[in-house]
Amino acid sequence: MKKIVVIGSTGSIGRQVLEVVKNLPGKFKVVGLGAGKNWRLMWEQIREFRPSAVALNGEAEVNNLSSLIAVSRGPELFAGRRGMEKLAVLPEADLVVVAVTGAAGIYPTYAAISAGKNIALANKETLVAAGHLVMDLAARKNVAVLPVDSEHSAIWQCLNGQDISTVNKLILTASGGPFRELTNKEIENVTVEMALHHPNWNMGKKITIDSATLMNKGLEVIEAKWLFGVDYTKIEVVIHPQSIIHSAVEFLDGSVIAQMGLPDMRLPIQYALTHPQRFVSSLPRLKFTELQQLTFIKADTAKFPSLRLAYEAGRAGGTMPAVLNAANEVAVDAFLKGKIGFNVIPAVVSRVMEMHQSISMPDLDEIMDADRWSREAGEKIIKKLY
Amino acid sequence: MKKIVVIGSTGSIGRQVLEVVKNLPGKFKVVGLGAGKNWRLMWEQIREFRPSAVALNGEAEVNNLSSLIAVSRGPELFAGRRGMEKLAVLPEADLVVVAVTGAAGIYPTYAAISAGKNIALANKETLVAAGHLVMDLAARKNVAVLPVDSEHSAIWQCLNGQDISTVNKLILTASGGPFRELTNKEIENVTVEMALHHPNWNMGKKITIDSATLMNKGLEVIEAKWLFGVDYTKIEVVIHPQSIIHSAVEFLDGSVIAQMGLPDMRLPIQYALTHPQRFVSSLPRLKFTELQQLTFIKADTAKFPSLRLAYEAGRAGGTMPAVLNAANEVAVDAFLKGKIGFNVIPAVVSRVMEMHQSISMPDLDEIMDADRWSREAGEKIIKKLY
Repeated sequence: MKKIVVIGSTGSIGRQVLEVVKNLPGKFKVVGLGAGKNWRLMWEQIREFRPSAVALNGEAEVNNLSSLIAVSRGPELFAGRRGMEKLAVLPEADLVVVAVTGAAGIYPTYAAISAGKNIALANKETLVAAGHLVMDLAARKNVAVLPVDSEHSAIWQCLNGQDISTVNKLILTASGGPFRELTNKEIENVTVEMALHHPNWNMGKKITIDSATLMNKGLEVIEAKWLFGVDYTKIEVVIHPQSIIHSAVEFLDGSVIAQMGLPDMRLPIQYALTHPQRFVSSLPRLKFTELQQLTFIKADTAKFPSLRLAYEAGRAGGTMPAVLNAANEVAVDAFLKGKIGFNVIPAVVSRVMEMHQSISMPDLDEIMDADRWSREAGEKIIKKLY
Repeated sequence: MKKIVVIGSTGSIGRQVLEVVKNLPGKFKVVGLGAGKNWRLMWEQIREFRPSAVALNGEAEVNNLSSLIAVSRGPELFAGRRGMEKLAVLPEADLVVVAVTGAAGIYPTYAAISAGKNIALANKETLVAAGHLVMDLAARKNVAVLPVDSEHSAIWQCLNGQDISTVNKLILTASGGPFRELTNKEIENVTVEMALHHPNWNMGKKITIDSATLMNKGLEVIEAKWLFGVDYTKIEVVIHPQSIIHSAVEFLDGSVIAQMGLPDMRLPIQYALTHPQRFVSSLPRLKFTELQQLTFIKADTAKFPSLRLAYEAGRAGGTMPAVLNAANEVAVDAFLKGKIGFNVIPAVVSRVMEMHQSISMPDLDEIMDADRWSREAGEKIIKKLY
């Protein structure tokens, strides 16, 4: 029985992780659960999965939860960033699932790898902002960083142990989001409600907006660079509106291996949990003869500049990807709050990137400093616009 | 440098094997070449590839060739079935490519495996008629039987060493041939010229007709059963008119891995030759954004009964698949000679199968007896119709 810790267990991915665990009885023991503030859902998860340790971000939430738990039988409770790190290094854990969003995911990931724990990584920011540090540490600790994202899981499954030197390019597919067919003028008038309606995937708000701007794909390009150790020239983005081919690998000889499935996060989650094995799932199956046609279109970086900005930040390296990510976070937040238009999101990111002096080979503190600087810079720009 | 023997070097696949060899200088040494009667092309191949041994099927052709070769410097010459078997067991050979068509391919394949040679198999009949014998022998001799057919190569690449017990089903794609959209009535009036025009693949005459009847896919289903060791219930045929997805594997968890590429036999040939490595090829590349839409349709076994007959023969086992194959060969030959209509091909096969008393677990002699019996039975039926 594999012992797992789920950090971010009350979020969209975390809840699906626990659903997969529940659907594979006898295969996993949940030994730790971590979340932000949702102490009510955490209480339900504790009763269902009986972890030995739990962490919440806020002291107040820990207190609320603590009042519900019988001291003699309940899990150990931790609070805040240090609490999350304690969870990440839990001695009995075999695998730590990092399913929090935001730059805060870097700390528990780093702690878990330092402690020699294998990681199932659903936190984009870790590799975007600190890919060089994390992958270097993982190599030294002989730790596997397993992707949970459907695109990276697809590439991982297509590679299936084959050496990256046999690869000609990675092909990341993107649905293209809900605004793929809008004109530049129409994109200016996109509302929050429109942007939150993703055609294929049911996800959190932040990632749904990132899908609509293609920033999500841009962040995935940077992640793929670090996960698979390839140059940016070898990562191509192709718009595939049906989200059936989740990504593909073209090998040196021209052979293309693709991973396909219905758009359902529980499949890549299950594969990350069960790897190197595969278990029967009760997930809905892809039926070729029931598919609509599959189509593929060039990504339009003139209409969706966020994708181009991500390649630029990735190529610049240093603290630039952290700055890209943080500026995007504040810009998306401002859009969701109605402060800026949809097409202003990449404009804010671009402006912050222009202002940034990138530090090469930054350590974790320098990355987090750049993250903070970028948020402040982004917010100043937004305030002027508002 | 891998030392290879190519049996069937003057045929469509054999010539492409030699083209791949030529395009990968320094990787292969052709030590043996075998063919049927085309001694003129064989003479050209000898001058280009300098094999140490050559075999032709007919004595007369060997004599013609012999008169061209300087006794002191030329290759050793062999004739007939025994000659082909000598080629198959050439001591210096690492890999024997069996690219002849017809049941005659069984003998050199069997001889090569007996001598412990790895096989790149492009001869369908070997596995269709004698799959149980060949795979059993290969297992005992610890010999790899590597597929050359694009569909089986695709499945092999998708599996990439993963255990067959993790597979839910194999999905063999079929172009559907040129008559996919015809009515039953229209199919009755199909001419030889129409049938020889395959929409995607440029192949020999026999296999092109088999593609049009879907018998080719039926034979591939039986091959897949033996190559990958799965039950017929786990092999599905899907019509995919664009021939871009060459086949796919659905794993237990629902994840589908597909192999894709432009329809070009040189890619699966190269992979069989270079496995477990992959080398850069100069073959035209698949470009997703230049693809037309990909579509998938159910195979219509009412319109194309050959596919159903192949499943039936495979499930019946014993000598029945050999009988299916041989009856189909004479029926296709009769169609190509204008003796019977296109829709009569499966009718002949079906009638011969009905007449056959299958022997279970046949040895090689019993298989070849069934093959001969089936040809005679088929020819009698055709004579009555003609």
